[in-house]
Amino acid sequence: MAPDSSSAGKKTLRFTKMHGLGNDFMVIDGVTQDVHLTAAQIQRWADRNFGIGFDQLLLVEPPAEPNVDFRYRIFNADGDEVEHCGNGARCFARFVLDQGLTHKRVIRVAIQKGTLELHVHDDNTVTVDMGRPQLQPEHIPFIANEQHSVYPLLISEHEPALEISAVSMGNPHCVILVNDVDKAPVQALGPLVENHDAFPKRCNVGFLQILNRHEGRLRVFERGVGETLACGTGACAAMVAGRLRGLFDTNVTLHLLGGDLEISWSGDGSVLMTGPATKVFEGYIPWNNPTHN
Amino acid sequence: MAPDSSSAGKKTLRFTKMHGLGNDFMVIDGVTQDVHLTAAQIQRWADRNFGIGFDQLLLVEPPAEPNVDFRYRIFNADGDEVEHCGNGARCFARFVLDQGLTHKRVIRVAIQKGTLELHVHDDNTVTVDMGRPQLQPEHIPFIANEQHSVYPLLISEHEPALEISAVSMGNPHCVILVNDVDKAPVQALGPLVENHDAFPKRCNVGFLQILNRHEGRLRVFERGVGETLACGTGACAAMVAGRLRGLFDTNVTLHLLGGDLEISWSGDGSVLMTGPATKVFEGYIPWNNPTHN
Repeated sequence: MAPDSSSAGKKTLRFTKMHGLGNDFMVIDGVTQDVHLTAAQIQRWADRNFGIGFDQLLLVEPPAEPNVDFRYRIFNADGDEVEHCGNGARCFARFVLDQGLTHKRVIRVAIQKGTLELHVHDDNTVTVDMGRPQLQPEHIPFIANEQHSVYPLLISEHEPALEISAVSMGNPHCVILVNDVDKAPVQALGPLVENHDAFPKRCNVGFLQILNRHEGRLRVFERGVGETLACGTGACAAMVAGRLRGLFDTNVTLHLLGGDLEISWSGDGSVLMTGPATKVFEGYIPWNNPTHN
Repeated sequence: MAPDSSSAGKKTLRFTKMHGLGNDFMVIDGVTQDVHLTAAQIQRWADRNFGIGFDQLLLVEPPAEPNVDFRYRIFNADGDEVEHCGNGARCFARFVLDQGLTHKRVIRVAIQKGTLELHVHDDNTVTVDMGRPQLQPEHIPFIANEQHSVYPLLISEHEPALEISAVSMGNPHCVILVNDVDKAPVQALGPLVENHDAFPKRCNVGFLQILNRHEGRLRVFERGVGETLACGTGACAAMVAGRLRGLFDTNVTLHLLGGDLEISWSGDGSVLMTGPATKVFEGYIPWNNPTHN
């Protein structure tokens, strides 16, 4: 058969589609493949009808520094490079093991700012060190005279103030306790709290139902996005809020719309998040490396 | 015939992701692979976060009757098997050529009811015979005493009646002429017309802007779905409505949100639709054929 427009002779890029509790990723091996991406290319691939479709693209690269195993970069669907994504970090760790890029089960990886250590367990769940929560109002940022576990937040002159906790996990979170997350006014209250004057950089809004000292249910209205299936930093912020109020022990299971996360926090130091990372399929897409054109 | 099992001992299914003007498909070669699908499996694959993500799944099978090249089946994201999809038919034709399943450029294929003939052109666009329009009110179905090119449709006591055309392309369509599709009240008017008492089986609602005798712009509010990027039967119904009103010649280019379709109709016989079919990527997904479990 004459060579034509079939993909046989064209360059292709190998990728893997994965998700962490429904937060989904195109994952690219940039160790054995030479990959240079443009924002326009990422936007085309991110489109769910015309492209592959994903929330974020994860690019695994060789380390540029000693004492780490990989460099790992995260791009949003609009092509912007971002700093950290807990669900993505779990998928990264499973990916490098599944692809045979490492045999280690404790993986050190350089991210945009700093280093992460990831632990892959025998059941293939992954633990991510999500860092220390910031509670000082000016570091969240949150407008308050001094630090408290619970703050009043006035939404309307005609309603009593909400009782909220304000936590930064690298991004600002407002956590609201509710009796039943199924009935929580996520769509109505989410935008009002997200854009409240007390949060100068806006905030993610978590609705937390405490089930017992080891278990809760959580829905999160993400800043600039709306309600999502599983917000990793939101789960950590909810754990911190629950502990500050004396309602949670050190290890807690949080039930999110997309599935469960195990969160550990002693009340000091880093918050540890453990959860699944799922491979969906492997793909091959026609592609010309822009630097090679 | 041996199912493909390229990935390290695990059973995998090979598929291709394609789209026709943004209407997107998982396309499966059921000729060289032995494929039996359940509705639950299709629903899992259709999920855009947890699965592959698609509007419809296209399954290509060997023909069960003489004088056709293939059998071609279409499943919605909920697993229901449906009869016909113009965008899908174009992707099917490109797929069997690209995969080397045929070398013919005129392909005859058995669908759920009857046979389709598809023409693949040198520029890789595909022409699909979309069948004859039905204009008799009882065949659409549309409530009217006798057949007309234009009918009044009363939406509100306080507004003048809309002037609409009613056409069946195997499914019921209402076509409304507008001066500017960008300003057409698609979201507001779409549901009111879709569910109007005059259309007992509801209808797809097309908003058509005539540019000249060879060109128009179209937005379609699809029955049970909402506005979509490219409705093939909607484009055919818009062509028929334009010709019935004496505003279109025999060959017309319609600009839809997802791209352009060429529609030909002499005023009698079948409507022919020509448009692109785009391959996005090839994938391999872990899979156990349910009949082999």
